[in-house]
Amino acid sequence: MCELLAMSANTPTDLCFSFTGLTRRGGETGPHKDGWGVAFYEGKGIRCFHDSDASASSRLAEVVQTHPIKSEVALCHIRQANVGEICLANTHPFIRELWGRYWVCAHNGQLTGFRAPEGFYEPVGSTDSEALFCDMLNHLRSHCHRDDSLEQMVERLVKLSSHYASQGVFNLLLSNGDWLFTYCTTKMASITRRAPFGPARLKDTDVTIDFEAETTPNDVVSVIVTEPLTTDEKWDIYQPGEWRLWRQGEVVMKGGAEN
Amino acid sequence: MCELLAMSANTPTDLCFSFTGLTRRGGETGPHKDGWGVAFYEGKGIRCFHDSDASASSRLAEVVQTHPIKSEVALCHIRQANVGEICLANTHPFIRELWGRYWVCAHNGQLTGFRAPEGFYEPVGSTDSEALFCDMLNHLRSHCHRDDSLEQMVERLVKLSSHYASQGVFNLLLSNGDWLFTYCTTKMASITRRAPFGPARLKDTDVTIDFEAETTPNDVVSVIVTEPLTTDEKWDIYQPGEWRLWRQGEVVMKGGAEN
Repeated sequence: MCELLAMSANTPTDLCFSFTGLTRRGGETGPHKDGWGVAFYEGKGIRCFHDSDASASSRLAEVVQTHPIKSEVALCHIRQANVGEICLANTHPFIRELWGRYWVCAHNGQLTGFRAPEGFYEPVGSTDSEALFCDMLNHLRSHCHRDDSLEQMVERLVKLSSHYASQGVFNLLLSNGDWLFTYCTTKMASITRRAPFGPARLKDTDVTIDFEAETTPNDVVSVIVTEPLTTDEKWDIYQPGEWRLWRQGEVVMKGGAEN
Repeated sequence: MCELLAMSANTPTDLCFSFTGLTRRGGETGPHKDGWGVAFYEGKGIRCFHDSDASASSRLAEVVQTHPIKSEVALCHIRQANVGEICLANTHPFIRELWGRYWVCAHNGQLTGFRAPEGFYEPVGSTDSEALFCDMLNHLRSHCHRDDSLEQMVERLVKLSSHYASQGVFNLLLSNGDWLFTYCTTKMASITRRAPFGPARLKDTDVTIDFEAETTPNDVVSVIVTEPLTTDEKWDIYQPGEWRLWRQGEVVMKGGAEN
């Protein structure tokens, strides 16, 4: 399997603290040592890093940990390979252009036997995750329009996600740089940090941060993960089947929870 | 304008030496300080770095200079903005997926007034270079087939390139990871290094290398640039209208030269 991390913020914010925690799980505190990747939106552009080495010992991961890259939306993945060999082409997040925007996807889970019909977007590697992502984009291109409302787009995404989720484990992060769609079948949790900010301590390594010193009073920064990263904060756990759409650090639409 | 650098090799080879020379021109020995980017193929996967800062002083560029990333095909660009603002989305090289492969493009020049017809691939940023690249891929998708021979594909690329070249300056690097297509309208030069290897000295900074110590006798490594990078080697200058197709360090097809 693997682990996911995403950020949605109302101001460009770096991911150093969360990324430092997550990457420990790539070969040190966790078994997800078969590659890692991260994509940071900067306006409509993207800055991405992919490596097929273990994140806990990757020189490139160290650079990303220590070099604050500020973004309003970022998606990150550390991999424990099941479907598809260990190689760069199989390393999430995956990126494609649709309607003049970069779309980025990272997936946790497995849809055994998933076969995507032929379409415009094709996987480059051999993971079911990339095949799923291409299938989603092919559906959007066929059934939605670039000018559709966010509600229409999300309705389609939820329908597609439920369909995939019926075939296996489907924890998803998907963004077009404007919003971040998250879907949980087995594990996902989020935290929204806003004033008054406090300190936080990572679970996977002896690092604490005082967000008060790193932020301004208007900042709203949410972090979404498959497993909580800190020990002294209250994470909001998704229910199976729950989805949340994030924009500028806030949940702007949600559904699928049983209560 | 801007400058281009590419590598084609028959064995995974790092780009540190050439990249170190080129990036000096991004704000130190040259005016191309409006961003830089590089893409390294690794199998069918891609490792890429993009930055809208000046390459001569970019922390990320320093990492790429000192962290040997081995590849058989790499493409690099340093930018001096003319069309399109300075931002990450306007930073070459541009990447799209076609037929289950990543295609990468970097362009030097300007096609004033170029307007691409609508198509499947769309630019994310506002450069004429990205619009051109999308137009090329839209043409390939419409007029070629994934199983076409290399000769058929190249014939189409040459025809397209001549068409663009008739509208302005069009120095091009384009790769699908298997081969590297290069087209010159105003400036391009190449060097092929093979045994017996010798030393080389960069033009833009006081760095020399002894390739003998870095290679094996069977290595063939070619570097293609808009302006030669070393002072003590003989570069092979392209003529206007000349194109060369590189594969594993060798020119496998060429044309367009007047003699």
